[in-house]
This record gives sequence, C-alpha cells and structure tokens, in this order.
Amino acid sequence: MAEQSRLDKVIALARHRGFVFQAGEIYGGSRSAWDYGPLGTELKENIRRQWWQTFVRGRGDMVGLDSSIILPSKVWEASGHVATFTDPLVECLQCHKRHREDHLLEAFEEKKGRAPENGMADIACPDCGTRGKWTEPKSFSGLIKTYLGVVDDESGLNYLRPETAQGIFTNFANVVTAARKKPPFGIGQIGKAFRNEITPGNFIFRTREFEQMEIEFFVAPDDAGEWFDHWVEACWNWFVDLGVNPDNMRRFDVPEDERAHYSERTIDFEYDFGFAGKGWGELMGVANRTDFDLSNHIEQSGANLHFFDQASGEKYVPYVIEPSFGLTRSMMAFLVDAYVEEEVANAKGGTDTRTVLKLDPRLAPTKVAVLPLSRNEKLSPLARKVADDLRGSWNVDFDDAGAIGRRYRRQDEIGTPLCVTVDFDSLDDDAVTVRDRDTMGQERVPLEGLYGYLAERLRGA
Amino acid sequence: MAEQSRLDKVIALARHRGFVFQAGEIYGGSRSAWDYGPLGTELKENIRRQWWQTFVRGRGDMVGLDSSIILPSKVWEASGHVATFTDPLVECLQCHKRHREDHLLEAFEEKKGRAPENGMADIACPDCGTRGKWTEPKSFSGLIKTYLGVVDDESGLNYLRPETAQGIFTNFANVVTAARKKPPFGIGQIGKAFRNEITPGNFIFRTREFEQMEIEFFVAPDDAGEWFDHWVEACWNWFVDLGVNPDNMRRFDVPEDERAHYSERTIDFEYDFGFAGKGWGELMGVANRTDFDLSNHIEQSGANLHFFDQASGEKYVPYVIEPSFGLTRSMMAFLVDAYVEEEVANAKGGTDTRTVLKLDPRLAPTKVAVLPLSRNEKLSPLARKVADDLRGSWNVDFDDAGAIGRRYRRQDEIGTPLCVTVDFDSLDDDAVTVRDRDTMGQERVPLEGLYGYLAERLRGA
Repeated sequence: MAEQSRLDKVIALARHRGFVFQAGEIYGGSRSAWDYGPLGTELKENIRRQWWQTFVRGRGDMVGLDSSIILPSKVWEASGHVATFTDPLVECLQCHKRHREDHLLEAFEEKKGRAPENGMADIACPDCGTRGKWTEPKSFSGLIKTYLGVVDDESGLNYLRPETAQGIFTNFANVVTAARKKPPFGIGQIGKAFRNEITPGNFIFRTREFEQMEIEFFVAPDDAGEWFDHWVEACWNWFVDLGVNPDNMRRFDVPEDERAHYSERTIDFEYDFGFAGKGWGELMGVANRTDFDLSNHIEQSGANLHFFDQASGEKYVPYVIEPSFGLTRSMMAFLVDAYVEEEVANAKGGTDTRTVLKLDPRLAPTKVAVLPLSRNEKLSPLARKVADDLRGSWNVDFDDAGAIGRRYRRQDEIGTPLCVTVDFDSLDDDAVTVRDRDTMGQERVPLEGLYGYLAERLRGA
Repeated sequence: MAEQSRLDKVIALARHRGFVFQAGEIYGGSRSAWDYGPLGTELKENIRRQWWQTFVRGRGDMVGLDSSIILPSKVWEASGHVATFTDPLVECLQCHKRHREDHLLEAFEEKKGRAPENGMADIACPDCGTRGKWTEPKSFSGLIKTYLGVVDDESGLNYLRPETAQGIFTNFANVVTAARKKPPFGIGQIGKAFRNEITPGNFIFRTREFEQMEIEFFVAPDDAGEWFDHWVEACWNWFVDLGVNPDNMRRFDVPEDERAHYSERTIDFEYDFGFAGKGWGELMGVANRTDFDLSNHIEQSGANLHFFDQASGEKYVPYVIEPSFGLTRSMMAFLVDAYVEEEVANAKGGTDTRTVLKLDPRLAPTKVAVLPLSRNEKLSPLARKVADDLRGSWNVDFDDAGAIGRRYRRQDEIGTPLCVTVDFDSLDDDAVTVRDRDTMGQERVPLEGLYGYLAERLRGA
C-alpha cells in the first residue's frame, strides 16, 4: 500500500477530530459543501477575526460591510457575470458524465509534462476511461439560480452571489456618505459565496458553497499601481505573520488570457497543498479591477458613483484594487502548514511519533486544555473549577478520559498551545503544571497567578 | 404632519449613519434583504461575539458548529419542511397582488380590536383597497429553491436552509464522536437562513435572507422540562445583561395551534419594537422539539442517532431544547432599546436635544473616537498617532471635521462610549480629555496611561 500523503493525513485528522464533516453525510453526503465541526468552526472564526483586525479594524483607511447573498439580477448583468462568468463544459459521449474542458487539459499536461498533441482527442474520460469521445465544449454558467417571491416565473429569478465584491460596489456611494470616507480607502467584507462548479473536489478547496474575505480598495486611477503593490505585500505578510512558511507560498502573475474579465492585472498566491500531480493551488488573488465595476454600475443603474475630490476639484471614477481571500482555502493552508510529525522519546527508552498542529496560538481552536491527572473525586472538581474560570477568556477544553500522555497527544493533534494539569500536589500547593505544545516543557504555576501567566503566553490570542 | 414615531427615528438614524442600507439600492432595491453598513456590521459582529462567548465558548456543555446553507433535499423531506413549512396565500381578485391570509386577519384585529365578523369578506386589499375579493387560500412553501450541478433537471434541486437547526441534527453523531460529548450538551451555530416570505417588511424584522443564532441542546427525555426552563432564563438574562430594558420584553407561551410542527412547547420572547398597530414583535423562541427531528432522521437516513449512556446502560433518542435567536432582530431590538433623546443645556443658556444610542459598550460599534480639537498641523498628527495606537485593541474612529460639539453629538448618535480629545494643551502636558457618552463628564488623562484607562472603562468590550 502506498504511503498516505501528507495532505491525506491532514484531511484524515480534520475529519476524525471534528474540524470538517461532510455536509449531509447521513444522507450520502453532498459534493457541494462541507460542514465545519466544533474545532473547524473555532479555527475558521479565529482566521476571520485576525483578518478583520489586521485589515479592517486595525486600519484607519478601511471600514467593514456585510451585504446580502441574494442581490437583484440586474447587479449581475451589470457586473458582466451573467454574460461571461462561464466555464467550458464537455460531456463524455460514452458515459455522459460532464467535466470542465480546461481542467481535463491541465490534468493531462501535469501528468505528462506536455500538452496533448491532438487536443481533446487524446484525453480519456476520468469516469469511464473512454478516450477522445467528447462533445464540443459549451459555455456553462457558474451562477447559481434561485427564485424569490410569490410569483412562479422569471420575475423572481435571482442569483446567489459568486463573489462578495458586488455588494461592496453597489454600496460604494452609501459608504462614502455615511462613513465620510474618501479615496484611498477600502471596504472589507467576509461572507459566503456560491459558484456552480462543474467538478467540486480536493476536500474544502473547491466547493460550490464557500467563504470569502474580500477587500475593495478605492484609489485615484494614477495611484492604482502603487496600491496594488502595497496590497500584495500586506497579504503576503498576513499569512507569514500567522505562521505560514513562505517557502510553501508563491506568487503567480496571471497572464492576460487567464485573468477574470474585469482584471487588468492579477497576482495569485498559490500554496503547496500537495495535491496529486500539480501540488499547488490558488489561495488568494490581488486584482486591479480598474474602474470596470463602478463604471458598469454607473452606466446600468444611472447612480452617481464618481468621487469628487473637493481639494483638487477633480472628479473621477475610482480604480479598485481587490485582495480576495478564500477563507476556507486559507484554513486548509493553515492546517497543512501546521501539520508536523515528530519523533519523541517515550518512557520505554524508545521513540514514538507524535502529531502536532503547530498553529499560531492566535489561530488555535482551543487555547487551553485543563486535565486532571486522573479521574478522581478530589481532582476533578478542582480541575473543573479551573476550566470554568478560564472559559471567560478563552476557548477551553476539559478532558479527563484516559492516560495523561494520551491526552497530551490528543491536544497536540488539535494544536492546543497550553495544557494545564491538575495533580495531587495541586490539592496541597495550590499550583498546577502548564505544558507547552511545541517544547513539551512543563512549568509549575501557582493557581493564583495562572490567569496572568496564560494571558502573557497567549497574548493577542 | 404627524410626529415621527420612535421606531421611524431609529430606522432613519440606522440608514443615515450607515448601520443598514437597502440591498441593491442603486437598482431600485430589494425587499428580500438589507445590507449592513460599516457601523451595522460592527454592531452585528459584537452581538455575535457576545452570544458565542456566553453560550458556546463560555460554557463547558456547549460546542460550536458551522454547517452549510445548501443541504440535500432529503434533509428537508425528513425534517417535515417540504410537507409542512407553508403559509396560507391569498390573491386579490382585483389587483392580483398576493398576501398572507393570517397576516391580513391579524392586522384587521389589531386595528379594530376584534376579529372580522365575516372572515376575509371584511378584509380590504392593502394594495388596491377592494374589499372581500379574495381567492381561496392556498399553501405556499416558505422554502427557497435552488439548482446545483451540471444537469438542468430536478435532480439538482436543493433548498436554501430555512433554519440552521437541521445542519446541527444531521451532524449530531459526528459531534458526539469527535468532541466526545454526551447529553446534557448542546451545539451552537450562527449563520444565514432563507425563507420565501410572502410579505417581507418592518425594516430588518421580516426579510427573506436573515441571520440566526441557534442552539440545539440535547438532553435525556425526562430532563427536557427542566432544561427548557433553564434556557428560557438564560436567554432572557442575556438580553437584560446586555442592556435591554426588561419592561420592553415579554414572554408568550405559544398555544398548540400556533406552534411549529416540531414543537411540544414554545415560549417566544417578544419585544416592543413599536410597530404600527401591534407594537410587539417576536425576538426569539425557545422550543421543546422533543425527539421529533432526530427520530425522523433516524427513520429516513437509517443513521444511528441514539445516545447510549454507558453509565446507566440506557439507550435513547435525546430530546432537544432549542433556543433560536434572530441575530438581525436582536440587533434591531438593541438599537430601538438604546435610542434616547435628551434635553441638554447648551452654551447659550437654553437647551438642545441630543440623540444618544446608549448601547452597552460591549455592543457599541465604535469604542473610542479620537478628535483633534481643530484641524491643525500640530494637533492632527498627534491625534492620528493616538488613534493608530488604539486601533490594535478596539474599533476606533478618527474625526476632525467640524465643531467639536457637533462631533460629540455625532459620536453620541452612534453610541460611541468614549471620546478622546486632543487639544492644544496636549502638546505641552502630554494628556488628553476623555469624554463619557452618557454623563458627558470629561476627565484629563495622561497619554502614557491612556490605554490602561480606556481598557478599564471598556472592560469586556
């Protein structure tokens, strides 16, 4: 049996420990989405908070927004999505399964190291194996339709947003007025988006329902290049500051024919997820959307989305620099990057392998685990009290099941930075042992000073 | 002209100051949803965080979950929503506008103080005024349909979830295993839900897209009554602790014929929003869902969602107590409750009216506003530096536009608890003036100790 890849191990851990569950699993599951379990929800929430603090609350030139998922169809007509947000779909003439033509060509090229000489004629169907029997490609819309209202006809047609960005553009004038902002300034938003992917896959990497963290940063047209560079740096630094190894990230300057319809320049960040074949996958992108969106909305809605600079007397349609993050993809990158297997000495003079998620404490889903040394009528109440006291400040786990060594490993595996052990000495010396996830070093800390000690160790988390 | 109602004033303030914008406003707007502007997004986020801390992270018997919006149709067949989640729809024979029959009857009763003697024959169409010309009521599904996948037929039919609860039930066994939990314990979740309301209205109160904060608390069947009471108290206290005047809330023990299909008992909390006619509106509900949902999922999916208690050797399907909060409704209640108009002395020896949002500091969207006394080349850089330093800890506003008195009023109006004023003395004494929103009292604070002073005043915020 081939050794399990690192990515497979991370996925297995994520499913086993309750970071991620298959949506609707008891009904055979859905390929469209995943559910986030207790640990995944906390991890995702921590990523959101770090992002919001760094890019919205922490900056004087940013404000937040939370616009709706369902917007009038006209928004998506103006944005160009109805006309151009499509993928090339081909169908196998043998088994009638459908695939994205560009993905099939890419997969061939990655496997063989060259493009197929005869185009699709060289490509075998991934489902039934038949070679070269494909329909002509047809454009397939990535927009997901829904119907609202009490009349059953096309007047109720709405789309689930394929990006959060348009909710920002349509509110541009509202925000300028209400928040008294002027370029250069930006609007940040975190929320769900939906795309009718032909081939969802690679765990939480490509799903039909997903979560974005997007910034639309409005600047004078002449300043767009400079701000583009600023945002590429700022985004890169955010990942690195939160612990992602820069060797596992790379920038890809997307050539014109691969860019989205609105973009004059795009730099994608790719992360080495370890996908079969290619390895790398897109983590986020920074795009120069120019005045494409605001101009289209001006033309289609008649609204005034120009900015009038009272100082210079100039009137212009701002250019937009858009850093667009996948929240769920970021979570996957943080998980893969934090996954470590280490050889550590065991009590028998040999070594064991321990699995550790070396997540930055700010991201770790559980900050502190409180462990009574054994399940005991004196230790357990004290340990529970310690846990309850700390819950006012952090997400705390309490675990009294099994040998202490196994419980440490369990916490290592989910990335808990600190374990607090209540032992029999605690009953006399009013102190506990604090164990560090990464060094496995232990320190005796008086209960009285425990909060302060943990607060110092978990600063900012 | 009739005096503007208190509710109208709150709505006007919310729209003017950027708490809430109409979705897709530049395209004529949508009745289905609202967008949350910079201040509304922060307020909503603060409500979420308080809820999560109180009910999920802060409790040892709760864990969090974040399940997907789009679930397989089978989930909604098993839950009974496909069959019974309907409203009675009637159409005016004159103008062909459609309405909810029960809402029309209720509105009549609130206006006249009695039920219509001749049923619908007494009811005039709110759109065209024609009396008593209605179709027979027909059942209208509140589920919103969407289509996923690459085949254009019913096999792609999915529903947008009308409640977040089912994502919790379908993951019950996953959570029990991964998080090693046993009853009594609960799962909390915050997220969007969608209902095809026939008549959306009352600002953000009734919308097709909205946000819920839900808990499903799993207990042994015999303990359901006790836990029901526990949760009614806990939810009530949450609102009161965050500043809602208990005189503006009431409990309504929902009679059997008005309860949802799954509920054995429901207590709704109603808040006195000041709606025309009725005044009160539903804020949240606590329901005893019994084993209705888990049993149906066991029957329909074949999954084992029983709980086996190793201690007692008992096997049972847990009962579920469900506290279900409307996040957006909660936000509306916090806004209405915090809205105050006060007469205050002005400099001319008379009085002015000031509008204040007396939001709890934990909820206030902006915690601190930094205001240079005037726009000046020495004051502004110092004030900006002060603001930038504080942004690492709180959401901070910087405002240098206009008279200081007007700027204080602007901050009062959005509920900012503390204003920090940098004046010319600051350049010499390295101190600033901190003004309190509620007392309007001012205190001189050295810059060196400013962070500590604010941290103490904003504790927990």
